[in-house]
Amino acid sequence: VGSDDETSPRDKQQKNSKGNSDFCIKNIKQADFGRREIEIAEQEMPALMALRKRAQGEKPLAGAKVVGCTHITAQTAVLMETLAALGAQCRWAACNIYSTQNEVAAALAEGGFSVFAWKGESEDDFWWCIDRCVNLEGWQPNMILDDGGDLTHWIYKKYPNMFKKIKGIVEESVTGVHRLYQLSKAGKLCVPAMNVNDSVTKQKFDNLYCCRESILDGLKRTTDVMFGGKQVVVCGYGEVGKGCCAALKAMGSIVYVTEIDPICALQACMDGFRLVKLSEVIRQVDIVITCTGNKNVVVRDYLDRMKNGCIVCNMGHSNTEIDVASLRTPELTWERVRSQVDHVIWPDGKRIVLLAEGRLLNLSCSTVPTFVLSITATTQALALIELYNAPEGRYKQDVYLLPKKMDEYVASLHLPTFDAHLTELTDEQAKYLGLNKNGPFKPNYYR
Amino acid sequence: VGSDDETSPRDKQQKNSKGNSDFCIKNIKQADFGRREIEIAEQEMPALMALRKRAQGEKPLAGAKVVGCTHITAQTAVLMETLAALGAQCRWAACNIYSTQNEVAAALAEGGFSVFAWKGESEDDFWWCIDRCVNLEGWQPNMILDDGGDLTHWIYKKYPNMFKKIKGIVEESVTGVHRLYQLSKAGKLCVPAMNVNDSVTKQKFDNLYCCRESILDGLKRTTDVMFGGKQVVVCGYGEVGKGCCAALKAMGSIVYVTEIDPICALQACMDGFRLVKLSEVIRQVDIVITCTGNKNVVVRDYLDRMKNGCIVCNMGHSNTEIDVASLRTPELTWERVRSQVDHVIWPDGKRIVLLAEGRLLNLSCSTVPTFVLSITATTQALALIELYNAPEGRYKQDVYLLPKKMDEYVASLHLPTFDAHLTELTDEQAKYLGLNKNGPFKPNYYR
Amino acid sequence: VGSDDETSPRDKQQKNSKGNSDFCIKNIKQADFGRREIEIAEQEMPALMALRKRAQGEKPLAGAKVVGCTHITAQTAVLMETLAALGAQCRWAACNIYSTQNEVAAALAEGGFSVFAWKGESEDDFWWCIDRCVNLEGWQPNMILDDGGDLTHWIYKKYPNMFKKIKGIVEESVTGVHRLYQLSKAGKLCVPAMNVNDSVTKQKFDNLYCCRESILDGLKRTTDVMFGGKQVVVCGYGEVGKGCCAALKAMGSIVYVTEIDPICALQACMDGFRLVKLSEVIRQVDIVITCTGNKNVVVRDYLDRMKNGCIVCNMGHSNTEIDVASLRTPELTWERVRSQVDHVIWPDGKRIVLLAEGRLLNLSCSTVPTFVLSITATTQALALIELYNAPEGRYKQDVYLLPKKMDEYVASLHLPTFDAHLTELTDEQAKYLGLNKNGPFKPNYYR
Amino acid sequence: VGSDDETSPRDKQQKNSKGNSDFCIKNIKQADFGRREIEIAEQEMPALMALRKRAQGEKPLAGAKVVGCTHITAQTAVLMETLAALGAQCRWAACNIYSTQNEVAAALAEGGFSVFAWKGESEDDFWWCIDRCVNLEGWQPNMILDDGGDLTHWIYKKYPNMFKKIKGIVEESVTGVHRLYQLSKAGKLCVPAMNVNDSVTKQKFDNLYCCRESILDGLKRTTDVMFGGKQVVVCGYGEVGKGCCAALKAMGSIVYVTEIDPICALQACMDGFRLVKLSEVIRQVDIVITCTGNKNVVVRDYLDRMKNGCIVCNMGHSNTEIDVASLRTPELTWERVRSQVDHVIWPDGKRIVLLAEGRLLNLSCSTVPTFVLSITATTQALALIELYNAPEGRYKQDVYLLPKKMDEYVASLHLPTFDAHLTELTDEQAKYLGLNKNGPFKPNYYR
Repeated sequence: VGSDDETSPRDKQQKNSKGNSDFCIKNIKQADFGRREIEIAEQEMPALMALRKRAQGEKPLAGAKVVGCTHITAQTAVLMETLAALGAQCRWAACNIYSTQNEVAAALAEGGFSVFAWKGESEDDFWWCIDRCVNLEGWQPNMILDDGGDLTHWIYKKYPNMFKKIKGIVEESVTGVHRLYQLSKAGKLCVPAMNVNDSVTKQKFDNLYCCRESILDGLKRTTDVMFGGKQVVVCGYGEVGKGCCAALKAMGSIVYVTEIDPICALQACMDGFRLVKLSEVIRQVDIVITCTGNKNVVVRDYLDRMKNGCIVCNMGHSNTEIDVASLRTPELTWERVRSQVDHVIWPDGKRIVLLAEGRLLNLSCSTVPTFVLSITATTQALALIELYNAPEGRYKQDVYLLPKKMDEYVASLHLPTFDAHLTELTDEQAKYLGLNKNGPFKPNYYR
Repeated sequence: VGSDDETSPRDKQQKNSKGNSDFCIKNIKQADFGRREIEIAEQEMPALMALRKRAQGEKPLAGAKVVGCTHITAQTAVLMETLAALGAQCRWAACNIYSTQNEVAAALAEGGFSVFAWKGESEDDFWWCIDRCVNLEGWQPNMILDDGGDLTHWIYKKYPNMFKKIKGIVEESVTGVHRLYQLSKAGKLCVPAMNVNDSVTKQKFDNLYCCRESILDGLKRTTDVMFGGKQVVVCGYGEVGKGCCAALKAMGSIVYVTEIDPICALQACMDGFRLVKLSEVIRQVDIVITCTGNKNVVVRDYLDRMKNGCIVCNMGHSNTEIDVASLRTPELTWERVRSQVDHVIWPDGKRIVLLAEGRLLNLSCSTVPTFVLSITATTQALALIELYNAPEGRYKQDVYLLPKKMDEYVASLHLPTFDAHLTELTDEQAKYLGLNKNGPFKPNYYR
Repeated sequence: VGSDDETSPRDKQQKNSKGNSDFCIKNIKQADFGRREIEIAEQEMPALMALRKRAQGEKPLAGAKVVGCTHITAQTAVLMETLAALGAQCRWAACNIYSTQNEVAAALAEGGFSVFAWKGESEDDFWWCIDRCVNLEGWQPNMILDDGGDLTHWIYKKYPNMFKKIKGIVEESVTGVHRLYQLSKAGKLCVPAMNVNDSVTKQKFDNLYCCRESILDGLKRTTDVMFGGKQVVVCGYGEVGKGCCAALKAMGSIVYVTEIDPICALQACMDGFRLVKLSEVIRQVDIVITCTGNKNVVVRDYLDRMKNGCIVCNMGHSNTEIDVASLRTPELTWERVRSQVDHVIWPDGKRIVLLAEGRLLNLSCSTVPTFVLSITATTQALALIELYNAPEGRYKQDVYLLPKKMDEYVASLHLPTFDAHLTELTDEQAKYLGLNKNGPFKPNYYR
Repeated sequence: VGSDDETSPRDKQQKNSKGNSDFCIKNIKQADFGRREIEIAEQEMPALMALRKRAQGEKPLAGAKVVGCTHITAQTAVLMETLAALGAQCRWAACNIYSTQNEVAAALAEGGFSVFAWKGESEDDFWWCIDRCVNLEGWQPNMILDDGGDLTHWIYKKYPNMFKKIKGIVEESVTGVHRLYQLSKAGKLCVPAMNVNDSVTKQKFDNLYCCRESILDGLKRTTDVMFGGKQVVVCGYGEVGKGCCAALKAMGSIVYVTEIDPICALQACMDGFRLVKLSEVIRQVDIVITCTGNKNVVVRDYLDRMKNGCIVCNMGHSNTEIDVASLRTPELTWERVRSQVDHVIWPDGKRIVLLAEGRLLNLSCSTVPTFVLSITATTQALALIELYNAPEGRYKQDVYLLPKKMDEYVASLHLPTFDAHLTELTDEQAKYLGLNKNGPFKPNYYR
């Protein structure tokens, strides 16, 4: 699909069918193919489509100039076109040098969006694209939508004065949010920021519900292992661990749990899992899964004691949980048996099966359902609307969670997918409970 | 067991074997029987026994004068004797006129506790007992342990000056906590108070884990219903509803859920339950269970539409959820078929099976495991210790949750029951996570 | 309810309202109360009621003279009145000296049935009642419905010539079926017999589905134990064991299984249970449940090694599985703490909690849902119809299972209870599968 | 891996390192690579390895000349080398023109086996290879191991006299077994045959346990669908349907079931599934799965009524269940969106997602775990031993199931994989149960 020519997009002259050339992508000719991908994604992102409909009268983002830096995929395109339908102008770059779907970028460019992204950018391309989004004669952004914090960082570094006109930042990633809190602590955050990552809807979907499915998918695709009767140890019983444990128990595995937090440990007990130290079961288990967010949970000593054929993988938040570096020693042989699957072989012939070299199994070896991405995208859109329309002074130069009520709104927009029918409070009931009939219904800490 | 004489305890002269008579109970001769009950309870409350052991050196409650008003049961006795072992003096009344175990009160009196309580007190007896705890020449409490707020209320009303010496209040019940927050809002709370009811450990056990078991138990004991294949609607998908749904699904029932909160609604969907309005399924279901905390969830109109034999019960927080009053009309016949079970019969012969007259099924028709009571009692003990030993100024005149770390401590004391082994952070890991090795491990809002 | 006079029914002269006195029961005046019980049971036995309706035209049991010996309960009454509606004459005795519901017997007598049964018969009464059913001038049975084989045995012993006119025996119990197979092996069975006990519908309901619910019910009612986090060993993984394991796993227990049969053992593994020898886990488990049908599965040596508070109970087929006799030694103290619950106390203070003295937990400590009894009763009725109407020579002097097709018919009569809608084969599909459109659909061995 | 030359193996001259050339495969040089594959498979087939060990003394297949026709994979190689270790001589062809792993065939040829098979045979090649196995001067088979019946058919057709020396046939497939029963009915089966397909261990693993995992795997790999909250209808509640339903329910799907057999229907009800006709739910479901073994279960009329995006797939026994032919009409557009995934598009834009063109999802879109293949291979080996060593007259010219005891032996050989410990009967218990201590333990019909 599309030409495979080697010319850098930066050296090409391309125009869309209306003569517009304010973009830089791989190949504008792929636009039709990309449009079909976007249309398919639209069908699974009904919440954004609903937002478009509701905004036909008023345009809550009229006047908004959004500069964005995210993965450029069909799902992102649905978000961008929704923002446009709500009244916003958008300029966009990619937050990852590999993740751009070129045909989608083409469809967006053809549709009039100023997109600067292609698959396989160099480091230099990456920052060049971001700069092209921001630095335009006669155009200045007033909203930032970021995923990872690179765009925010670039503006801080190069165009700090721009923040005078910026009404707020919406940030999705753990890393980006972490950077914002650091800025805030240091007193350097100069606009309000919305932390989308920690909204309850996103957390439950990204962690509990998504991992419940992706642990099975990731293990099957890589190893074809049969789950029934397997002994598995899951390190960590947070949301991710809870999802993994529930799924494996349901498939007939015998699951052990390790924990450092006594409250989560007690939950594991009540949910029917033996709470052990890793050393107690390391010799007997068939599968080891880390979900702690910690480092060096599975160290060389444990790897040495595992039995032949043991599968080791990571569902936690980065590549630190398994001490993979400790396996790069001369006496061990590595054998790549399949994409994302290595056998590490001990001198006595014992093999362990290491997945994704200890990186995230669910990102490397399974896919994220569009429905989950829809929740995130809808939350991003609502966060932009909230910050853009908030009365002066409601938000300070700090990091905020989306108001509970809007979190509930995101959820409500996704209920039709399940043909789910919400009950409404009567006036009498609302009064009895001391609640507004339209919510919010629960305290902020409700999970 | 014991004499059944009709004389009021207030008119009796009783002494324990050491000659002490500072108590008022049914019959001191039941002490031996009560002691055995306490000993059995001790075996299932290892956390309190562990607290006793750890306090053999230092006495964290030395000098504490605790006045208490709770159910007087074997489990409470274990708590009281633990407080004594930690250094406290205790005076105690009952928080309910029916719930006192007379033989346990006898054992406590024999053991030197000033207990004022018996089963079947009159309203006047009730307040007289409370007063006898508080109002004693030469003795003044400095800590309050309350369950329901009646003791606190009495002191506010009769002995407001007493608060000058009181270091804090520990309150367990929903109602009592509600009263404290009202006092606090009104600026009338004059000592710090600890809200034990909302600690995460208590919440999960009282609601999710306990209800998961008691919904099955309560339904079986009252109706012998077979769960397999039954269609059930559960109103409300909070912790209680989640527990009920999980249990019934596991037993082969087909479960529908109603919700007002879109976030809980989305959770119900993802957990595999059809989210409906009550009116959609009311004609077809075999069992209706309310868990909303709301009022008039099941009104007469729904009751009219239920099919013959439908079972209706309440697992929510009071007796408001089912509009039972609406069934007290002349055309309906009530038939008591068993303790806690009424058939309400329509003119056409249709019967619905109403349990516990709409009051709480789990309190009326099943029992609470000692393990759950142990968690509450341990939390109470630690809350007393915390308030009693807190440095001046740490706690203001406000309502507090138990510090996360002590919540975790309560959990850790209950892990040995499950032969559960907690993992400890290495120094390197603690540093990486930015945590103290001894906790707290999670943010306060963690559930 | 009714008079409590001490006169033996055998010494009373009673008549029903129509002047009939061919019965012997406790008190005919209880008939109204009994009628209401029968009416309530009718509502939960829709399959029998459907049989009555379908038989309004033809009477498949016209001319049948059925002599029966079963528990006399409201459910049996629904069966008997169904047989009568199908054309049969019935004479009935009780198969157990304690199990008769006197008011139901009264309602049956009032309705014209010749019933000879009351609660609390002596051994002599028992056989006298059976004899009165069989031995009547001018009446001779041509069908036998038995539960336990006592009636059959009595006729064999006293009136062997009667078998010349008898068309067949329908037997429900394990014991009775066993006796029939022995007669058959010995060449002494002189009429065809139908083994109702082993029909697939009855087996699955009595064992898998019923035990799944009754294990939880029996344990809760006797001990109020919390299931979450408990370690349980289930001895035997047949249908009963499968039901117990599934229920306890779902409630958050950690379940171990013991088995002698490698096929069931492999099923346990695949279903997610650790397969162990009892000795491996006996020191650590909180609950021991036997479901083997074997003897001396839990012997004194294991009881000695159990930990304090361990609960021991039996869900298997008789009282042999736990060696209770071995606990009747002088150094052990027995303490009855509740109906059906004994503490057995070792010299060092260790207690084990023995339920129902090792007899069947589900019979002693929980109840059987009417729905399950309905399946059995319907199968009995159809077995009578089948034997009574079978063409000469179809059944020899042997023990038979109900034809698959009638087994399927029993099942189909119970589907409306679940508002379940069966799919029908098209002609083309039936031909493709080589099946009759009306069944049978599966081979006989299908479970 | 290996040369890709175009010369037909039949035209090549190849010798193994010992000079042997009695084979015909793609490329002998791939032997080393194939050997590693076999070694990896050995690690997951411990039962066959155990058989080898136990046969080190006696050789139960000494003198056996086995001609085989199966898929030629690493797992088959482990079986063949086990047969050789037990004393047999083997000649082997492939039962499928595409399924041969060329490198494994090379390793077998290098190891001295006479293998005639390569990936991509023509129809003519296929029969030529079979003939080369059978038709050899001075060698005549006395045992047949077949998968599909083609080898058996060839001998019947070309060398009927060969059967005089043949002691028996072992057949694995549904199709092959069906052919044998037809031969038997027609009185043309001239040697005993063992039906491996219907042994309980194979059935449960191939159907219930395997499908429980492969339905999830197949759906995820093809569509990345999220299971939580999805409405699914499963047609058929036999073993395959039971596995699919259990898995999807556990993952949070809402599952409906259709059935024609009232017994399976009642099981579905008790297991917690709404039993419906397909027409009742076809408009609302997100996924349709067929597991009936029937034809035209999902016809065009249903496909017309499905909602946009509905996924349709088949887990039953062939490609007949979905009427795919009815979708090949001009007004519908087919779009291949991924391997094994077609979108069929209606004129109004509605798409349904058809998987594997209605062929078996679990074969087309997921893999079979080695453990399952191990059970089949072990059963085949034992069936050969049984037939080869059976005393004259034990087996007639009929189709047999493997004796229960050997079925149990297969199971027992797989227990060590799970570190499972079987309990042994005491002498006293065996006597009580009337069983041999070594089995068989259950009646033949036990499932």
